Amino acid sequence: MKEPDRESVLHTTLVEVGPRDGLQNEDVILSTEDKIELIRRSVAAGIRRVEAVSFVHPQRVPQMADAEEVMAGVPRRDGVSYIGLVLNRRGLDRALAARVDEVNVVVVATDTFCVRNQGCTTAEALDAWDDIAAAAIEAGVPASMTIAAAFGCPFEGETAPSQVVELARRARDAGAVEIALADTIGVGVPGQVRELTRRVREAAPAVPLRFHFHNTRNTGYANAIAAVEEGVTVLDASTGGFGGCPFAPAATGNIATEDLLYSLHRMGIDTGVSMSTVVDTADWLGDRLGKPTPALLGRAGTFPAPSP
Amino acid sequence: MKEPDRESVLHTTLVEVGPRDGLQNEDVILSTEDKIELIRRSVAAGIRRVEAVSFVHPQRVPQMADAEEVMAGVPRRDGVSYIGLVLNRRGLDRALAARVDEVNVVVVATDTFCVRNQGCTTAEALDAWDDIAAAAIEAGVPASMTIAAAFGCPFEGETAPSQVVELARRARDAGAVEIALADTIGVGVPGQVRELTRRVREAAPAVPLRFHFHNTRNTGYANAIAAVEEGVTVLDASTGGFGGCPFAPAATGNIATEDLLYSLHRMGIDTGVSMSTVVDTADWLGDRLGKPTPALLGRAGTFPAPSP
Repeated sequence: MKEPDRESVLHTTLVEVGPRDGLQNEDVILSTEDKIELIRRSVAAGIRRVEAVSFVHPQRVPQMADAEEVMAGVPRRDGVSYIGLVLNRRGLDRALAARVDEVNVVVVATDTFCVRNQGCTTAEALDAWDDIAAAAIEAGVPASMTIAAAFGCPFEGETAPSQVVELARRARDAGAVEIALADTIGVGVPGQVRELTRRVREAAPAVPLRFHFHNTRNTGYANAIAAVEEGVTVLDASTGGFGGCPFAPAATGNIATEDLLYSLHRMGIDTGVSMSTVVDTADWLGDRLGKPTPALLGRAGTFPAPSP
Repeated sequence: MKEPDRESVLHTTLVEVGPRDGLQNEDVILSTEDKIELIRRSVAAGIRRVEAVSFVHPQRVPQMADAEEVMAGVPRRDGVSYIGLVLNRRGLDRALAARVDEVNVVVVATDTFCVRNQGCTTAEALDAWDDIAAAAIEAGVPASMTIAAAFGCPFEGETAPSQVVELARRARDAGAVEIALADTIGVGVPGQVRELTRRVREAAPAVPLRFHFHNTRNTGYANAIAAVEEGVTVLDASTGGFGGCPFAPAATGNIATEDLLYSLHRMGIDTGVSMSTVVDTADWLGDRLGKPTPALLGRAGTFPAPSP
């Protein structure tokens, strides 16, 4: 196998999704101030893109009910971009009013899961995407699509790569600035990452790819490294590895920001993010949530260890 | 990046190291009968190489004090090979008397760790290796060398690849049938796996490689997949992911047999091992050890799930 192209893997951008995908799946609901503190700490660590909130129905996801208040309190800085997740026009209007820097629209690749996750079929979610993307672009806000369950569905089993490609075409046609492929339930393996990367790039060569992994079956970090080796430069991760999905049985947390940083930094890939600051933030977040941190780095320690 | 050579990754052999590396690092000492039962279950799952015991001083590793009794009780079958770990001539004599099928000699790549692990410097361990390998070959038993701390040392930091290459040459010169590169403390990353594979192959092209990973910092499975992508066809793993190293601070368990099987099988790589049997064995072993299984597959379930 060829060495990865060094030029293409010198820098990876991490999108911190803990404030959204992490917190939305925890029983303990943090205070607005703590949510803002988590974001503040992530930015202080060097994170430059944060999926900060989702604008969905508060009865459906009570953890995100204070999205406007969170966005009002985040530190606004040049070069730091806040992403709001939206599923419909109502959510987009809220997101624009809250001055998000980007909107991310989720379309689940399989119907059964799409209905359970957001109350509509995949075809209906794609129509909503067209509508949201057009309005976002008109408002001057970039829109990206996350293709959820791109690697497999808890209800329908395998997701056909052709289905993922079809959704990616719809993303491109409506002007997506980025396409994210999400292994929502943590079933993907590196071979799939390589195949989907190739096929989606063929279908939408001008649109950058982002990947979103969960470590449910101990494949998440291997998948992330495979994506980087394929030249993908943007990855989602969640401080401490908290999270999951309330609408998918047995889903567990995102890959952890600090554990991913460990692999990337040890492979000579720059992220601009301070690993020790993220480890400290994960400790703090575990305290706030009242549970141990799923990430391993905080327990194992970095390497090489600091001199005694 | 090129696709992996399909021919080279069609089959991977797993060496089940749970009976040795797993059990030797648990506080609870299993009965001889339970140790034999673990081995019996592994063989029933389709495992064909088992690191069954180590022949070391019982005061140093009391978990392995009944090595002879365990070897007397394992199911002897055509095509099933039992490996005994040895560190010196006394250990080899015991191993031969117990009728092991292979001996595996550990040489730690860094002096400080070698002294703590086995009471001698790396140079002294290499001399012992020469002696053991010659005697084993004379007795008609194949000998392999495990290069421990090949990716990093808890006391000395980085391990120079040139040092690993030097040890690999000594392995080859004395007739090793296999060289195992062990990330004893779980600090390695896939870039290192690829580099060490290339360099050791240059130094000892005729000797097959095996890898041994721990998932201490969530890099173990990514490392295993990288090895497979490099064409390595033999990997160590431990049912349930139990284990660690009593002589290395903060070390955690081996990569789990069932979680590795999940990745390999989903990538179309055959192992001949039943994932569900290994999951059942891990449950049983967790009960015997009185602790939860570090592996994730037992909790998350296989995919696609069986029909409801």
